Amino acid sequence: MMMARGGAKVTKSLMTATGPRLFTTATRAMSHEGLSLNHLLKPTVADVSASSWIWNRDPTIGGGVRFASTITLGEKTATPTPTQENQKKTENESTGGDAGGNKGEKGITSYWGVEPNKITKEDGTDWKWNCFRPWETYKADMTIDLKKHHVPTTFLDRLAYWTVKSLRWPTDLFFQRRYGCRAMMLETVAAVPGMVGGMLLHCKSLRRFEQSGGWIKALLEEAENERMHLMTFMEVAKPKWYERALVITVQGVFFNAYFFGYLISPKFAHRMVGYLEEEAIHSYTEFLKELDKGTIENVPAPAIAIDYWRLPADATLRDVVMVVRADEAHHRDVNHFASDIHYQGRELKEAPAPIGYH
Amino acid sequence: MMMARGGAKVTKSLMTATGPRLFTTATRAMSHEGLSLNHLLKPTVADVSASSWIWNRDPTIGGGVRFASTITLGEKTATPTPTQENQKKTENESTGGDAGGNKGEKGITSYWGVEPNKITKEDGTDWKWNCFRPWETYKADMTIDLKKHHVPTTFLDRLAYWTVKSLRWPTDLFFQRRYGCRAMMLETVAAVPGMVGGMLLHCKSLRRFEQSGGWIKALLEEAENERMHLMTFMEVAKPKWYERALVITVQGVFFNAYFFGYLISPKFAHRMVGYLEEEAIHSYTEFLKELDKGTIENVPAPAIAIDYWRLPADATLRDVVMVVRADEAHHRDVNHFASDIHYQGRELKEAPAPIGYH
Repeated sequence: MMMARGGAKVTKSLMTATGPRLFTTATRAMSHEGLSLNHLLKPTVADVSASSWIWNRDPTIGGGVRFASTITLGEKTATPTPTQENQKKTENESTGGDAGGNKGEKGITSYWGVEPNKITKEDGTDWKWNCFRPWETYKADMTIDLKKHHVPTTFLDRLAYWTVKSLRWPTDLFFQRRYGCRAMMLETVAAVPGMVGGMLLHCKSLRRFEQSGGWIKALLEEAENERMHLMTFMEVAKPKWYERALVITVQGVFFNAYFFGYLISPKFAHRMVGYLEEEAIHSYTEFLKELDKGTIENVPAPAIAIDYWRLPADATLRDVVMVVRADEAHHRDVNHFASDIHYQGRELKEAPAPIGYH
Repeated sequence: MMMARGGAKVTKSLMTATGPRLFTTATRAMSHEGLSLNHLLKPTVADVSASSWIWNRDPTIGGGVRFASTITLGEKTATPTPTQENQKKTENESTGGDAGGNKGEKGITSYWGVEPNKITKEDGTDWKWNCFRPWETYKADMTIDLKKHHVPTTFLDRLAYWTVKSLRWPTDLFFQRRYGCRAMMLETVAAVPGMVGGMLLHCKSLRRFEQSGGWIKALLEEAENERMHLMTFMEVAKPKWYERALVITVQGVFFNAYFFGYLISPKFAHRMVGYLEEEAIHSYTEFLKELDKGTIENVPAPAIAIDYWRLPADATLRDVVMVVRADEAHHRDVNHFASDIHYQGRELKEAPAPIGYH
């Protein structure tokens, strides 16, 4: 997530001109489904081009935004909001929204002045995505070696390897050659280890008063990247009700299993994820074969994929599978590396983590 | 973490010149405690100035790096590494390290070609930190309103408020006016909610096949920011053994309590964190008073703080407390906002998250 500034061009003069909150995204009033606060704020310059992301912030607007907190939802008003009396009571107290403000509006606006930022692309269209920003997009490394494999040497290695191989059998039985569906559902599983590992390392760093070596970030990046794979594939393969039920069940089991597995043996946990990624690479290769044969339709790439991986506008599902496979190869490397560090009797924090590229 | 490109100046010509892996950090061989792989790789241009972070990558080096995988640790060799026979067996297989390679070397090098990147600052010194990179640094928003308070209105609000207030009493008893120690130990607690919340939202996004609205990132950012507060304060206040024991105990209790609390009522959980942050602001204000009175020595700011918050080189502990307090105010806003969204009967994903600023 940290890679690819994507042509961010923020000059020193802009730095001094815009005051302390440098290079933040513009605070043009965010509107959700058309609701605009623009009449409350001075317009800001928020022209952003694909090759040159420029943000600026007018400090006075920040002050304005933080107190413009009275617009609320129209459709759903649930629990009671503070009374007018409360609101007048203390001058510096800012509470919930005023339900009487703008009935019929659908948007939620921040009551606490924490405006999300509006970014526009080079062609003037809005940046559509909240879960990633332009500077978090990247081009996948297509030179990565897909064939690399860790030869199991110790008992734990073999246990990890054969656990993964044995899980492949029922998976193949269930999905057959439905690789789109397979990708979508298995990404719900793949996104768990990075989050669990990252969280456990985070807690360890806190209670031991230790640096992390960047590994918390590396593992959380992996989890988010896998989640982005899911966000992409769910545009292509819509889950059926029983597939959703299966995903919920599997998450409950796998999350807990991996959590305790990681507590007991992070060496084993990372090795297993390394092997899982090797299998993922194989599956995506099979996916590509089906696409090339025509048994799976090579649809246009989803918009989210085009923006996230910086694919050309006419990219197809095949291009998406290529970059996803490259990502999985990188995760394989990171996890085998993490396991190797443990095998050497060291802790992850002793080796700078491979962050900045998924 | 996503904010502050910090003067990143990557021009379009650089983009085209450096091939697909744009704007990655330089892949000069990373060395840990002096071990250098430079003799294996071509040197890369990695001059980085504070106002202009330019990275480039020579694609051939990547190929080189990924196969330069045989240097291992000197001091500790633990479990068996693959035999030479194994290594010759399959051409494209790359396994663990070769224990015979470089005895006496202390560094760990990636066996999987996943080199961490070397970044240098403007003055030529290395970027010291693995857990954050130059583009993740920022200047705190000192204009933020520190006095804002959410007036408790509903039963859950009052429960949250009085839970926090009642926890203050034993805390004040334990720490008295030792605010440095207080800050250090309480940041170990403060860094938990963001991680737990982020993780639960991540799992929800996966199993429901839903977008997150950026909230996973917002909460994980908060957790990482609090952890950076800890990394800073532990340079100033060294924990004693019984304080470490207390932290471990409290983490065990609080992590689980917040986890289940968030599952049961995210509305309550966020509200409580909002009130905790309000108390944190108050505590840091008291900390500043003690610094100004001279009862706590106003030591120079730790290096990590100077780099993370972009403080001037002669910054002091007082400056650090000011920026930390501003961060806590932002977290207060984010969490009260999150709770407000729930109060409105909405889900977090329906409102774009306030990401990009801590």
